[in-house]
Amino acid sequence: MKIAILGGDGFVGWPTSLHLSEAGHDIHIIDNLSRRWIDTELGVQSLTPMDSIQERLRIWHDETGRRIHFHLIDVAQDYEVFKAWLSEHRPEAIIHFAEQRAAPYSMKSDRHKNYTVNNNVNATHNLLNAMVELGLDAHLLHLGTMGVYGYSTVGAAIPEGYLNVGIETLDGSEAQTEILYPANPGSIYHMTKCLDQLLFQFYAKNDGMRITDLHQGIVWGTHTNQTRIHEQLINRFDYDGDYGTVLNRFLIQAAIDYPLTVHGTGGQTRAFIHIQDSVRCIELALNNPPKRGDRVHVFNQMTETHRVRDLAEMISKMTGAEIAYVPNPRKEADENDLIVKNDKFMELGLNPIRLEEGLLEEVVEVAKKYAYRLDRSRIPATSAWTKDIAPTLNTDPEGKALRSVS
Amino acid sequence: MKIAILGGDGFVGWPTSLHLSEAGHDIHIIDNLSRRWIDTELGVQSLTPMDSIQERLRIWHDETGRRIHFHLIDVAQDYEVFKAWLSEHRPEAIIHFAEQRAAPYSMKSDRHKNYTVNNNVNATHNLLNAMVELGLDAHLLHLGTMGVYGYSTVGAAIPEGYLNVGIETLDGSEAQTEILYPANPGSIYHMTKCLDQLLFQFYAKNDGMRITDLHQGIVWGTHTNQTRIHEQLINRFDYDGDYGTVLNRFLIQAAIDYPLTVHGTGGQTRAFIHIQDSVRCIELALNNPPKRGDRVHVFNQMTETHRVRDLAEMISKMTGAEIAYVPNPRKEADENDLIVKNDKFMELGLNPIRLEEGLLEEVVEVAKKYAYRLDRSRIPATSAWTKDIAPTLNTDPEGKALRSVS
Repeated sequence: MKIAILGGDGFVGWPTSLHLSEAGHDIHIIDNLSRRWIDTELGVQSLTPMDSIQERLRIWHDETGRRIHFHLIDVAQDYEVFKAWLSEHRPEAIIHFAEQRAAPYSMKSDRHKNYTVNNNVNATHNLLNAMVELGLDAHLLHLGTMGVYGYSTVGAAIPEGYLNVGIETLDGSEAQTEILYPANPGSIYHMTKCLDQLLFQFYAKNDGMRITDLHQGIVWGTHTNQTRIHEQLINRFDYDGDYGTVLNRFLIQAAIDYPLTVHGTGGQTRAFIHIQDSVRCIELALNNPPKRGDRVHVFNQMTETHRVRDLAEMISKMTGAEIAYVPNPRKEADENDLIVKNDKFMELGLNPIRLEEGLLEEVVEVAKKYAYRLDRSRIPATSAWTKDIAPTLNTDPEGKALRSVS
Repeated sequence: MKIAILGGDGFVGWPTSLHLSEAGHDIHIIDNLSRRWIDTELGVQSLTPMDSIQERLRIWHDETGRRIHFHLIDVAQDYEVFKAWLSEHRPEAIIHFAEQRAAPYSMKSDRHKNYTVNNNVNATHNLLNAMVELGLDAHLLHLGTMGVYGYSTVGAAIPEGYLNVGIETLDGSEAQTEILYPANPGSIYHMTKCLDQLLFQFYAKNDGMRITDLHQGIVWGTHTNQTRIHEQLINRFDYDGDYGTVLNRFLIQAAIDYPLTVHGTGGQTRAFIHIQDSVRCIELALNNPPKRGDRVHVFNQMTETHRVRDLAEMISKMTGAEIAYVPNPRKEADENDLIVKNDKFMELGLNPIRLEEGLLEEVVEVAKKYAYRLDRSRIPATSAWTKDIAPTLNTDPEGKALRSVS
């Protein structure tokens, strides 16, 4: 199958591209390489050394004999260029990762808020708009986030996208109806994924587009079966306060004897998935497309939930690392419960990698191996959710002054 | 009170500016004059002759001694310019009309879809973003639309913004919770207003912004007490297939002996409000601002509902005009019921102008008076909701060939 992967140079996009190339698909990566530019902006880099996309693809070909094509196109900015590409290539499936994906980065300043909204809304809308304009009946798979749900406060498990509710009607009886799960995003980034949902809902209804939206949890881990093939195919690993996700940050902190930084009480419960399972889920969804006329298919792409402080304690026990409770840069409840349904992927045969099995391997294979490349000053999370929170963050578990964030 | 009115040159923005100026407020219109540019693009013009904004404001000053200030700023495009203006002027209230407001225009082509999404999302987000960045605790009033609700299918009255629902919890009991009314927009334009709602919800929650969202029905009528003061203060009147709203189109059609064009069966039930009541509602909302920490205040700004074919019959009876049933350019249900709550404005003392009282006056005072300026070829609605619908529209109740719409 000819597949366009928008954002195929990113953390999930790259291993997805390799995984689907190995499965025999004709893969076209479309990327503006913005994630590399943001590394430059922030003065950070992946813990793992990353070659250029062109070099990675040359090695992939050398190692496997397979070709992945790369096209430097900014889907959000260059509508006409992107439409012309789609018109020429007419892929059968399009996997859309082309969004700014860090909540802390999206809250960094007014410029970063605008960038995230513009980039993410335009990337998604340009894609939908061009597909309708071209009459392109491709299956669109989008990487969304569990964060669109906000966190349930009524003690019900989070269903897969749609919520069954009772509404009192005029005659006093109750009608049952199914609605898109009410959005309650916790950051500008998460909000853009809620905006995406409405775009998808509209285009599925008005134009019969076939769309799958994957509400993904926090990804941990680095390697997949394909990224292991050659040292230079390695995936990126972000540990900085903006792009590093909580579990990967704990792993590298443990590896370099830096305190595990728990924000607030650590009472936040989050959903997790290993990167290897993430690419498997995407393939499962790809192989089970919606029919024309279906509403948007939503899968919860996560395999387990944990409270953040429990994770810190687990890793502390495994490695001896200390735990530091630091002020929370986010505006959120101190404690929340979270129960999530993921029946759809389980029914399709997903056999998840469990946290407890994979963690120690990550610490040794990735965190310790590349620890020499790490800049300790980039570990603290300094992007505050509000102007009131910002001054409270000026602390560092190692007691050093932080660089300015503006 | 110092009030910024974004989009104050438009159909509702202009009479609102005059109304609030007469009430003694210090009014600053901020507008990029895009509505005038779109007239030029489409080759149409307001039925009523419209002077430049500068000339209108000079006349307002001559007639009343009051000054309204005009600033040519594109809120959607020029974030830094707009932020600098807000920083210098620090208004106490901001009324936000600065959005592309025609559903048919938003569906005209891929370019028009992109323009509407970009313009509307960026205008709203730039405003919110700048207010937070500047620590500006102004009351933000936004003109939304009844169209965010889609139309209820469960036979319940549409509440004011929030819906009380029952959700089954893990232990089998039912928890009651109030959610933002589920969005079900019927066009790209309406969708942007749904996106706005999520932006407002987030900024109210994260930053304590004080926001009122007015979900307005279809506006009819032309004059308000202030636009009557001088011929050159007259409001715009759109009759074309893109910007003309259904009732005003029927009025002008009746005045020039053109068939009343009912789309589809005319079984669509819509909510209506007179322009004079619209500006009164905005003043009522302005005088009843939310407190810091409140969720977004939502008012349904409409006064009555009617089925489209009933309106056509009412006007036909009054004027003798014929009715022509023409293909519907929209993708929507043929027939829908609509019951809407508007208790909040009624409790604040709104005494609505009823359709049956005002209609004939409009036909005589506006439609017949300016009928000589009308271009009959601009009456048919030619912007189709989908590529399948487009070819079905190539009909004109007068039997003439239509101009191309692309």
